[in-house]
This record gives sequence, C-alpha cells and structure tokens, in this order.
Amino acid sequence: MNRLKELLNIKYPIIQGGMIWCSGWKLASAVSNNGGLGLIGAGSMYPDVLRTHIKKCKKATDKPFGVNLPLLYPNIKEHIKIIIDEGVKIVVTSAGNPKLYTSFLKENGITVLHVVASKKFALKCVEADVDAIIAEGFEAGGHNGIDEITTMCLIPKIKKSVDIPIIAAGGISSGKAILAAFSLGADGVQIGSLFAVSKESSAHLNFKEYVTNSKENDTILTLKELTPVRLLKNEFYYKIELAYKNNASSEELKKILGRGRAKKGIFEGDLKNGELEIGQVSSHIKNILSVDEIFSNLISDFNSQKNILSKINF
Amino acid sequence: MNRLKELLNIKYPIIQGGMIWCSGWKLASAVSNNGGLGLIGAGSMYPDVLRTHIKKCKKATDKPFGVNLPLLYPNIKEHIKIIIDEGVKIVVTSAGNPKLYTSFLKENGITVLHVVASKKFALKCVEADVDAIIAEGFEAGGHNGIDEITTMCLIPKIKKSVDIPIIAAGGISSGKAILAAFSLGADGVQIGSLFAVSKESSAHLNFKEYVTNSKENDTILTLKELTPVRLLKNEFYYKIELAYKNNASSEELKKILGRGRAKKGIFEGDLKNGELEIGQVSSHIKNILSVDEIFSNLISDFNSQKNILSKINF
Repeated sequence: MNRLKELLNIKYPIIQGGMIWCSGWKLASAVSNNGGLGLIGAGSMYPDVLRTHIKKCKKATDKPFGVNLPLLYPNIKEHIKIIIDEGVKIVVTSAGNPKLYTSFLKENGITVLHVVASKKFALKCVEADVDAIIAEGFEAGGHNGIDEITTMCLIPKIKKSVDIPIIAAGGISSGKAILAAFSLGADGVQIGSLFAVSKESSAHLNFKEYVTNSKENDTILTLKELTPVRLLKNEFYYKIELAYKNNASSEELKKILGRGRAKKGIFEGDLKNGELEIGQVSSHIKNILSVDEIFSNLISDFNSQKNILSKINF
Repeated sequence: MNRLKELLNIKYPIIQGGMIWCSGWKLASAVSNNGGLGLIGAGSMYPDVLRTHIKKCKKATDKPFGVNLPLLYPNIKEHIKIIIDEGVKIVVTSAGNPKLYTSFLKENGITVLHVVASKKFALKCVEADVDAIIAEGFEAGGHNGIDEITTMCLIPKIKKSVDIPIIAAGGISSGKAILAAFSLGADGVQIGSLFAVSKESSAHLNFKEYVTNSKENDTILTLKELTPVRLLKNEFYYKIELAYKNNASSEELKKILGRGRAKKGIFEGDLKNGELEIGQVSSHIKNILSVDEIFSNLISDFNSQKNILSKINF
C-alpha cells in the first residue's frame, strides 16, 4: 500500500515536475499514460493557453493529471477559475503561502499538493490542510528555497514532523535515487530534469542537448537575493557572476536578469542569453528519451537495485 | 558480501569520520569495538600527540582502526612516519592530491582511502591506485569541496565512473540514510556529525549541546574563497557574513578567521568566537549518546527501514 498512489489514484508514485516551458499537455499526458502523475506547468502560460493545454491533456489521457501553479505568477485567479471549470482534480502550488488557496481549491473537490524546501514550510502546509507535501532539496532545478537544505537532509527532517505523504524532489533521475528517496521516508518522488529533456518536453532541442552534454559542476544555485534559481552556467550566467564580483546591488541584478530569460533559454533555445533552469542531476542525463523509455528505465533500475539492496545484511 | 567490509576487515561498513578536535583514541576505539572503522583525526594533533593517541587506541581495541590525514596540514611527513612505526594499517587522506602519498603508504602495507567531493577527483584517486573513495557531499560538515555537489547527486555520478568501493559521506545520521546511501550505489558510509557529539568525542560539552539544540538551517557552507567549510552560525560566523556584505577581500576574510578558531569552538567550547564545524544533519541530532547506543540505533533503524522498503512494489 502506498498512500500517495491512493491519494492521486496513480500506478507509480512518480510525479513529473510542472516546469515552465517544458511541461505542456504532451509531456503531462505521456507521464499520466505511463502511470505517473503528469503536471501542466501553468507558470509560463497565459490563461487561454492553460485552458487549451488542459483540454488537450484531457483528450490525450483518461488518467489523472494535474496543474502546477506557482503562486508568484500573475493571473493566478484566472488560472484557478479555468482549473475548476475544466474539472482538473489535482493542483500543485508552489512559490507562495499554502494558506492562500488551499481551502478554496479543496472546497472545489481538488487535491492540493504544495512544494516546500524546509520543515518550517512543511508545517505551514499541514496547518493549511494541504493533502501532500513535495519536499524539494537544494539540488533541484529552477526556482528553489534559500536555505540550501539537500534532499538527503530535508526528507528525514520533514518525515519526523508531519504525517501527510511526502514526495521527495531534487537529485532524482534514476530508479536508484527513487529507492534512496523511499529509504529516507518519502512516499513518492517528483522528477523534473529528466522529463525536461524528454522527447515530449516542449523545451527547445538546443536546451535538451546542452543539458545532455553538461558536466558534473555545470549547474549553480544563484540570484539568491531575488528568487534563488538553479541553472546551467552559460554566457548569461557569467554576466551575473561578474556582477556579483563587482558587488552589484539587487536592482542591478534584476536589470541583468530582465524579463523572459527562461523562455529565451528553455523554449527558444538561446543558449547564450537564456536562463537555462535545470537540476544538479543535469550531468547524469545523457540521452533525449521518450517518456515511455524513461518510465521503463526507472522501473527496471528501481527493481534491480531493490534486489541488490535486499541482499545487504547488517 | 560487502567489498568494504572485506577491504577493511570490519563488521559494519560504517566509518567514523576523522574529525579535528573530536576524534581521538577514545572515539576511534569505541567505534572500532562496535564493529565500524574508527579514525583518529590527525589534523589537530602534533606528531607526539598523534603517537600517543595511536598507542592508546591499540590498547583500547584489537579491531582495525585508522588515521585521517588532511594533506594540507603541516607535519605530514612526521605523521606518516609515526603511522608506519606504530603499525597503523588504514589511512584516510583528504584535502590534497592523492598522488602525493598513496603509493608510499601502500608500499608500507597500508590500505589507503581518499576523500573527494567530485567525480573529477574520484578519477584522480583511481589513477593514484587508492583502495576506496570517500565521496563527500555538499551537506557534509567541516572542510568541503567548492562544487556544492550533494550526496544524492555525487554517489551515482562516481559509481558510474569507478570500480573501487565508494563510501558515501554527508547527510548521514540514521539507518534510513545509510540505506539511502546503499540505494545510490555506495558500499559503505562515513558518519561525522553524529559521532562528533557522542559521549566519546573530545569536543567540548558546550559544542555538543549547541549542535543538539540547532535548527534546520543553522549550518552554512562559507569561506569558499579560502577553504570552504560548513559550520554552525554563531557570532564568529556573523562577522564573516558582515564582511561579505562589505565586500571583504580574501585577505580580510583570512584576518577575521585568524588561527585556532576550530580549536576554540569545538575543543574549548567558545560558542561566540569559535568555528563550530558540523554537517547539515546537525539539527537531526537531539541527544548526546554513547557510541554503543549510536551503533545500536543505526543498525535497528537500518533493518526496520529495510523491512519497510522490501514491501514497496513497483
């Protein structure tokens, strides 16, 4: 029995991270059709775009899927209206206070998961009556917490403090890592980077190839004064790095960041000027695979490592 | 069969990290007597002190134990002479190039392990014919790598690249975390913080109590321009933080750091002016226990979590 599979009515306790410019209906439906939970990333979508993606996702799968809603983006209320209108049953909220919308969403029959990066915010989720917590470690890609707590330290810490299901995120791109997450006490995992470079991801091929060619220390958590973000180092990042060396103010950093950097990098494939958000597992990913292949790899790796583990005796 | 247990001739694949001002003969022999590998931390010892600790450790245990030798400390050659004289059979080198002393130590019948924080340096270990690698993640306490690679990402990365045994370090203070390390492909674990606050640790009671009262984001990896170190925030750290805010140069940071800070904090218990080196698991540790109790907890936690894991089916 797995609490998360029951809560979400899914076959595998694997959630695909809702990622801006990567996870539209194509990726989300492919994940759901494989037995995981696909998420449409609303953060990069205007309301009408979100509606279109939800409609297409419903046509492409009869399995549960959800929407990821970063609470710091504009249009939140419109997004929520569309989610309810279209009958989406699962919402993952992030980057904001879980008290804001959880009760309203639940009143409308929606299961609510919230992303946190510390025990402190996990406790706020419980107070807000969130259904499950996605606990995201320092190694995760994209926008992240400021506290730098790694998955290895975060999951056991939260596990000791809350009773609702915990989904581990950050550093997970293999069946072995899924097994490690369960060892730490998680009920499931959220996987981002691996799906960001899948065939079904909307990311530009340039971005996917840059990720699959990256090396072990090519990502960094930066811009901690604005919104901390883990990204691949490139020309844009080196501008940020130089600004830090010159003691730039937050205002100056904001100016360098500008607007639409993530779209430029991830969706348009501008490897020089774009913001290339990805997790520290970036260098573990060597091929651009279909979601079918990814699931098949994850599950066989999980089972064979579990078999190895069963033979270790203390 | 566990390669590490065979290599080191120990009962449990658990190595106690060799830590300055914490791990003298008392801690090392207690760990070895419990079936792990105890390490005397030579980094804080003058040569004659090291010799005394080795002699006392030999009297206190007939099990294998070793010495941790940070290669950046002075007196290295004298330390090595004493280690050979006294017949120590296992040495862990760290903070330096594994090519420097590995072959000499091995010619003298010593098994050599080396600490790394990246795949790049793991490959250097293999070239240097090191016997096993201790792979230390970003969350580890004390002196650390600059690349910020977490245990979750580091272990699988190194596992894919080398064939010799890998010991996971960083973020491990429970049987669950040991199980997670094995899931990721490790052959054993190195545990530091948990033993640093054990009854047998030479650390000052003030330090141990500061650790057991710490909260989830109380440690930080800092002084990256000098030697990166993870420590607990205190008055000394806030001086460093202020210096960063004022754009201090490396020279100014060195001046603030001064000399003997770790001794002051860890050994003398000066919580205001000392450097309080500890891992991110600091806040997971709630009690000052004996090494016997620690081993008993680790093993029963490992076994019960392994039992839970065996029931998870994909």
